[in-house]
Amino acid sequence: ADGAALYASKGCAACHGADANTPIMPIYPKLGGQNAQYALNQMKDIKSGARNNGQTAAMKAIVASVTDEELQAIAEWLAAQ
Amino acid sequence: ADGAALYASKGCAACHGADANTPIMPIYPKLGGQNAQYALNQMKDIKSGARNNGQTAAMKAIVASVTDEELQAIAEWLAAQ
Repeated sequence: ADGAALYASKGCAACHGADANTPIMPIYPKLGGQNAQYALNQMKDIKSGARNNGQTAAMKAIVASVTDEELQAIAEWLAAQ
Repeated sequence: ADGAALYASKGCAACHGADANTPIMPIYPKLGGQNAQYALNQMKDIKSGARNNGQTAAMKAIVASVTDEELQAIAEWLAAQ
């Protein structure tokens, strides 16, 4: 899986910015350079519902269509930004 | 409130690192440069219990002793790192 391509195609960039560090609202997180394991865990927890605070409803709709393997690739790409 | 002093005295640095970007475990987030509003919202949500996923139990114990005004100062300091 190609993390950069998935980040673009799955809709991540729409809210978090093309470089993952220019979110469109200050209530959204910057993601570039984040620990991959932390980022992956958050995406999985939002997908499962274990994390459901704040603006995670929008994220939940997005990650519903992303496999765990794809989330891993996205997380690794994020960490490298 | 002095965000830098609070970050050190309230125990944040023990897990997230003195510079806020060298957490002691990969399942912990890097915080330096984060949007202040996002960081503040997460700390408040962990304090209230609205966010309780992952390793937030440790955070909840920490933020229990931090006022909302102090959390704001910490969030602004984090964003500036």
